[in-house]
Amino acid sequence: MLEAAQSISLNANQIVSYDVVLCDNIMDVVSKCVDFDAEDDTNTVRGVFVDAGLPEQFKRHFLEKLSSIGAHYVATEVPGDEENKVLPEVLKVVKQMNALGVKRRSAPCIVIGGGVALDVVGFAASLYRCGVPYIRVPTTLLSMVDVGVAAKTAANYLGYKNRIGTFHPAALTLVFPEYLSTLPRRQISNGAGEIFKLAVIKDKDLFDTLDHYGPTFISARELYSDETKDIILRSLNGMAVELENNLWEHNLQRVVDYGHSFSPLVEMTYINELLHGEAVTLDCLFSAILSFNRGHLSGEELERLFNVANKLGLPTFHSGFADIPLLERALKDTTIHRNGSQNLPLMDGIGSALFVNDVSSDEIQRASKLMAQLSTLFKLLKNNINLDYK
Amino acid sequence: MLEAAQSISLNANQIVSYDVVLCDNIMDVVSKCVDFDAEDDTNTVRGVFVDAGLPEQFKRHFLEKLSSIGAHYVATEVPGDEENKVLPEVLKVVKQMNALGVKRRSAPCIVIGGGVALDVVGFAASLYRCGVPYIRVPTTLLSMVDVGVAAKTAANYLGYKNRIGTFHPAALTLVFPEYLSTLPRRQISNGAGEIFKLAVIKDKDLFDTLDHYGPTFISARELYSDETKDIILRSLNGMAVELENNLWEHNLQRVVDYGHSFSPLVEMTYINELLHGEAVTLDCLFSAILSFNRGHLSGEELERLFNVANKLGLPTFHSGFADIPLLERALKDTTIHRNGSQNLPLMDGIGSALFVNDVSSDEIQRASKLMAQLSTLFKLLKNNINLDYK
Ligand SMILES: NC(=O)c1ccc[n+]([C@@H]2O[C@H](COP(=O)([O-])OP(=O)(O)OC[C@H]3O[C@@H](n4cnc5c(N)ncnc54)[C@H](O)[C@@H]3O)[C@@H](O)[C@H]2O)c1
Ligand SMILES: NC(=O)c1ccc[n+]([C@@H]2O[C@H](COP(=O)([O-])OP(=O)(O)OC[C@H]3O[C@@H](n4cnc5c(N)ncnc54)[C@H](O)[C@@H]3O)[C@@H](O)[C@H]2O)c1
Repeated sequence: MLEAAQSISLNANQIVSYDVVLCDNIMDVVSKCVDFDAEDDTNTVRGVFVDAGLPEQFKRHFLEKLSSIGAHYVATEVPGDEENKVLPEVLKVVKQMNALGVKRRSAPCIVIGGGVALDVVGFAASLYRCGVPYIRVPTTLLSMVDVGVAAKTAANYLGYKNRIGTFHPAALTLVFPEYLSTLPRRQISNGAGEIFKLAVIKDKDLFDTLDHYGPTFISARELYSDETKDIILRSLNGMAVELENNLWEHNLQRVVDYGHSFSPLVEMTYINELLHGEAVTLDCLFSAILSFNRGHLSGEELERLFNVANKLGLPTFHSGFADIPLLERALKDTTIHRNGSQNLPLMDGIGSALFVNDVSSDEIQRASKLMAQLSTLFKLLKNNINLDYK
Repeated sequence: MLEAAQSISLNANQIVSYDVVLCDNIMDVVSKCVDFDAEDDTNTVRGVFVDAGLPEQFKRHFLEKLSSIGAHYVATEVPGDEENKVLPEVLKVVKQMNALGVKRRSAPCIVIGGGVALDVVGFAASLYRCGVPYIRVPTTLLSMVDVGVAAKTAANYLGYKNRIGTFHPAALTLVFPEYLSTLPRRQISNGAGEIFKLAVIKDKDLFDTLDHYGPTFISARELYSDETKDIILRSLNGMAVELENNLWEHNLQRVVDYGHSFSPLVEMTYINELLHGEAVTLDCLFSAILSFNRGHLSGEELERLFNVANKLGLPTFHSGFADIPLLERALKDTTIHRNGSQNLPLMDGIGSALFVNDVSSDEIQRASKLMAQLSTLFKLLKNNINLDYK
């Protein structure tokens, strides 16, 4: 009785729900933004955070349409690009939220832009007054297919990718594929990298689609076709299914971590050379070689992987994956992240996964060597559509 | 059908449970720290964060006992006191966590200290890799009765109290009242301020206990008596009940916000004069006058409140509560915090609450004037045990 009285147990239960909606026109986007958790006081000034790198016509268009339906807002630019995914940028957004007097529950701020802008503003929204809601409008392919459904926000810190962050999904994400029309081809391929990851580790049909449709997919003119929409929705769905049952990552064996084991440190080390989806793709290929060397993937399957990456305009080699100490440090940090076990997702044939905990230094060396060889072979044999990666 | 396919709903459910345990001896404290989510690898080095202001004997004692049961750790000091509850201190802790390679799920870091150290380290733990677990060992009365059970972490920012923060309760909190033996009397009273808040707004019995036991309670020698333990547990329980059903504050009408409507800005404005519990107490009295002026509290009840605050060594007046523009700005910011409505908890007799949304500027002026008058009267009539507040 005394013992019982000496301790208190607190138990609480939180339901988190959010939607990702594909929109067919801009009016649909802005009206969904404004109608979501609107409040009685229609004079409330909303915070709108705009990716500085979004082409001017899209910025103007979005804000004009917001005005046209009577929304009051103050627009602030946030920079895109990985080197800007840092705490000082997050804090600038917090300051602006404070200056605007952003409410805690209604009239959410809006962020429109690529994954960096979305992560930075999402992080700020999670910190300000312990969290305010926000709406995401992704404008790059990568942010549409991946960040759009994500629960996490982050900033890079101390030279490490996403070293600080929070779980704070957007209340609503609105995907409007027309924004893709201005994306440089390298950025399209970059986004295709995250789709590629999902396909190889859990969706063989999607992989077949990418194989068949790859070159069309990355040619910008076809980007908002029905096929493109299908691929985007399919990727989003695949991510959503994985996230839904493990949103707070209590289970550290996550198939969506495929391609994210060695790449974080490689990406940060070569922040001026590699884009996120490129680093992820390279990790996918490297991990596929680990699978192949362990007999979980056939030579034909491995070759198809290199082929499809190539068709999507993605790199199949980078010197970061020849740097054994770097790869070892990367795996060590990832092991800490997965609580002391490698929990390394490997491919078990195309479209399915297994987890291993005992990848050795020796295996890393062998895989690295084979990756370089395969890539060279590719350059010789194929009509290489890659940009020129070193 | 097409419409349905165009959107994705993600629904997830998070269960959060944590314990607050009252410990009778130091071995109980350290062994509970070390055993909690211990991992196989017994060589893991734990992060221990120690309040720099904790008396040397307690620091040494805690670390010696940790060593005595075979724990490996690296101890780092974090400063106490309100002016140190800032982001740079939080980031120092993040850096140290990264240097130590703190795991994501097991072998939690430990923080031992007052509410500032607990908030700073808790905030860091919530950010590092999107959140790692931590254990709290509060060493001030305020942190034992209030922070100990809290779900939030925070830092002051832009001149505002707790302007940034997260929901990230400690996995375990261990309360060891013996730490109170070195607390200066003003700090004891400060902690009593949060107990006072809880008593006046929701626990009449606790209020009667404070009335009867107040002077004994604040005399440090009696601090770890059975009565003291009872008061601590009763406060913790009261807080826990309020938090459990509203941990993420989806409902913005919170009785535990009593005393926290005007005080945050007053506390920050007079950061070198007022302690947190003192500012809270002053807000409790000010809000009680608002209740009295609206007929929700009798003159006798109001007098009892001033009496009990006085017995607990707490201030009954401060010039911040004579500064009408400051009080108005404070209420305005609190209104934003409560999503555009005042949602102001007022007393409805001792031990119960009601919420109002229409406190006027005029009422604030009248209450401020009456507070000054009542306090002067008190100084004349009573054997004033207060420290000398201006
Ligand atoms: N939160 C998550 O869970 C999650 C998931 C996956 C990826 N990410 C993060 O996403 C980031 C990458 O996102 P990204 O690839 O969108 O990079 P990005 O945000 O840097 O955008 C790339 C570039 O395109 C510009 N841009 C944006 N929209 C454009 C448009 N419509 N036309 C032309 N240019 C445009 C940007 O200004 C930027 O210069 C990484 O930091 C990655 O870690 C986060
Ligand atoms: N997270 C929450 O929900 C929550 C709830 C209530 C209060 N708080 C916060 O708690 C903070 C106040 O905490 P506090 O009153 O403990 O202040 P504090 O942490 O500044 O401690 C007061 C002083 O006592 C020193 N000290 C600590 N232990 C001691 C001991 N045993 N003997 C002697 N000195 C000791 C500290 O170094 C400091 O100088 C405020 O910032 C407040 O906002 C947070």
